[in-house]
Amino acid sequence: TPSDREGHSGTQSSHRLLAYSDALISIIATVMILPVAHTKLQGNDEELRQSVQLLLSTKIAVYLMTFLIVTVAWAAHIRLFQVIVRIDDCLALLNLACMMLITFLPYTFSLMATFPENILGILLFCGCVMVMGVIQSVIVVYAFSRPFLLNEQIQISENLTVYKHHILKVIMRVPLMCFLASIFSFILFQISYVLLAIVIFLPYISRSLKWCRSKAIGQVEETPDSILFYTFLPEEPLSKDRVEAFSDGVYAIVATLLILDICEDNVPDPTVVQKQFGGSLIAALQDYGPEYLAYFGSFATVGLLWFVHHSLFLHVTKATRFMSMLNTFSLAFVGGLPLAYQLTHEFPRNSRNELEAIQISCVIIFFAGIFQLAIWVVALYNEQETLHPYVRYGGREHVFMLAKLSLYPLVALGTFFLTCILSQFSASIFHLMEITVPFAFLVLRLLVRGGLAMLRLIFCPDR
Amino acid sequence: TPSDREGHSGTQSSHRLLAYSDALISIIATVMILPVAHTKLQGNDEELRQSVQLLLSTKIAVYLMTFLIVTVAWAAHIRLFQVIVRIDDCLALLNLACMMLITFLPYTFSLMATFPENILGILLFCGCVMVMGVIQSVIVVYAFSRPFLLNEQIQISENLTVYKHHILKVIMRVPLMCFLASIFSFILFQISYVLLAIVIFLPYISRSLKWCRSKAIGQVEETPDSILFYTFLPEEPLSKDRVEAFSDGVYAIVATLLILDICEDNVPDPTVVQKQFGGSLIAALQDYGPEYLAYFGSFATVGLLWFVHHSLFLHVTKATRFMSMLNTFSLAFVGGLPLAYQLTHEFPRNSRNELEAIQISCVIIFFAGIFQLAIWVVALYNEQETLHPYVRYGGREHVFMLAKLSLYPLVALGTFFLTCILSQFSASIFHLMEITVPFAFLVLRLLVRGGLAMLRLIFCPDR
Repeated sequence: TPSDREGHSGTQSSHRLLAYSDALISIIATVMILPVAHTKLQGNDEELRQSVQLLLSTKIAVYLMTFLIVTVAWAAHIRLFQVIVRIDDCLALLNLACMMLITFLPYTFSLMATFPENILGILLFCGCVMVMGVIQSVIVVYAFSRPFLLNEQIQISENLTVYKHHILKVIMRVPLMCFLASIFSFILFQISYVLLAIVIFLPYISRSLKWCRSKAIGQVEETPDSILFYTFLPEEPLSKDRVEAFSDGVYAIVATLLILDICEDNVPDPTVVQKQFGGSLIAALQDYGPEYLAYFGSFATVGLLWFVHHSLFLHVTKATRFMSMLNTFSLAFVGGLPLAYQLTHEFPRNSRNELEAIQISCVIIFFAGIFQLAIWVVALYNEQETLHPYVRYGGREHVFMLAKLSLYPLVALGTFFLTCILSQFSASIFHLMEITVPFAFLVLRLLVRGGLAMLRLIFCPDR
Repeated sequence: TPSDREGHSGTQSSHRLLAYSDALISIIATVMILPVAHTKLQGNDEELRQSVQLLLSTKIAVYLMTFLIVTVAWAAHIRLFQVIVRIDDCLALLNLACMMLITFLPYTFSLMATFPENILGILLFCGCVMVMGVIQSVIVVYAFSRPFLLNEQIQISENLTVYKHHILKVIMRVPLMCFLASIFSFILFQISYVLLAIVIFLPYISRSLKWCRSKAIGQVEETPDSILFYTFLPEEPLSKDRVEAFSDGVYAIVATLLILDICEDNVPDPTVVQKQFGGSLIAALQDYGPEYLAYFGSFATVGLLWFVHHSLFLHVTKATRFMSMLNTFSLAFVGGLPLAYQLTHEFPRNSRNELEAIQISCVIIFFAGIFQLAIWVVALYNEQETLHPYVRYGGREHVFMLAKLSLYPLVALGTFFLTCILSQFSASIFHLMEITVPFAFLVLRLLVRGGLAMLRLIFCPDR
């Protein structure tokens, strides 16, 4: 049996190594929202708009940059370990070294955002990426020297060396760009930022360049071997398991971020309770009421968005690069949820700030949901390849899945417009929404059946 | 195919739900170390001993209580979902509600630790546990009303109702104890704490009571059906996948805790850099040097402990309750590592405090490693059932695995005694240890082979 062979020859299935890497990368991608949330808005009198501008300037930028770069690194990691499917101790240790460098990237972004004109942040970032490139190349060379570690499709192909060179070429592009960026940073640091931006969109740029060339010169046939891996085609499959594991990590850490703050900040000091509240703990805790509500609201929303994601990926048979990109956008918004919920309860009742915070929450929920819906639409577009037969357009579960996916965007949109009209009841509307949505999910199947039956009754009454 | 049936009838494999639950529970179990780490030791002049006593009093107690209770809840969750192996939307939503209550438990502990004489913390905790008990009972009743959701062994057994009642009885014991505790809290709150302690050790207490009774009256045969699930025997298997997933979550969050602090606290303020360091960012960052070292040291140690854990569970075929308990102890010490490393670099060079912080780090690493070794010893004790043939005593990989497991305890012990003798070089010794250990792991296979060859040469020179 394969599990008998494992360990015996020192080689192992890479499954758990990848699960651990996914957990690490998803945590690192998401925790950078914490510094944003910890930025206390100075004084309730100031306009939220100003504070938000302050936040936007550096910390949100760091959060988004981290999320983007880390997911790019994660996609590269997936592609690498789709080629190398078995590992040994040496590869496991090299991978850990790589992970250590990835987790250090957010700090270099913090430096860049705080000191945009100082080149130290860029140099540190480029240094990390270059070392990562070297480690990845060592991993590739090591794995190709022991072909039993490789994907079977590559093992049986005759031109192993071609493959190796192709992969090394793709891997080394990013460190080379970073090397250029670090040199340019001494001359004109703005150019380095442009180069770093190019690094992120490199696959898309090279794709479109190739497309232009093929239109100009005529169709250029790629070698059939290199089409299987490292193609950067939008329909290139990324391991569905890993997309799920990464999403699970993000949803799990986001769901628990608020309880961490509550445990640290919302346990009153015994002396304060004695002095201000006459020793009554309940009275002291009533001050924190809205924050508990924020916690439960945020947990429920994140949990239900996970639930929708879970249902969606149950019906999907293959995750393509494009779907994974949409998934990343959805997760980036999910990461902003705890911040939005915290804002919602930081301002006095019926203030203009509270209204805006609630509307920001609605916008974030809307976008988190709409990108999930977009994954579904993209999956439907290639439904023969990406969906189980029973959920394809017109399939039994199709309408039900659509209802699940559109519930949050619709509710968020509705709440947004309701708070615009009935601004003095905005908090009550928002809380009502928080409480109803979980129950709506519980009875969704009944609702959909009832809705369909009614539609049928109206449009085809004779059937 | 099974994946075709999935979703079709609205039922799904529970795999991803469990992975998400594991991620949530492992994060919640571990993040309570953050409030401990954030307790700033006031002034460097004070003795560490006093500060540690202050820490020990409340926050470490909260961390350990959370870790213990949450892992107990997690074990109960494993047992429940070993009986229910398929889920539908309704079960997924009920499980999310259960998770929300589990993540709220750390807050009730914080209240209990800060206000030990106020019954509100106990009442909140008991309330959460009772609601959780009700939700779990609903899950059991719901699943038994749809037998296709159950484990096949239970599905084919004839006495489904016996099973249902047995499981409900086991589940409801804990909420009942909590109900008693909440009533006693109004009379004498000390009794409630005793009752809550009993809840944690309930399986062990009921086991030993049964054992005493069987010795007194004679062997009492249990029904063969109920022996398979919910037995609380130490050799009852817990899903190996879930033990691994939970451990991965703990290792991942612990490895990344320090970078979170570094990103928040170690980005200097631009005005400070301008005033104090004449605009030189490098000079300003040199102040934080030790903290980067702490980060890399902590990440490497946690990563390598994960690596050892990964190798260990690769050789294990079945995880028993007892092994999982030892694993929990090991993880609880791993959770303390970032704190220990942070302490190591918070004190001035060659101070008494620094020496003690380094020694505490060594003790924590030692115990984290020694409990991993204990898992291996327990697995060897039942090697026919729990280990792959090639690693059993005398097997090919046996010595190598033993070397991997004993490296960290030995190194930690050695460092501890060296720092006792050469106390003025303690920091250098510790940093040297940090740098050498990863390389020791890389060449461990060579070292072991060399060592074995030398032993053979000494003891059996004729072979």
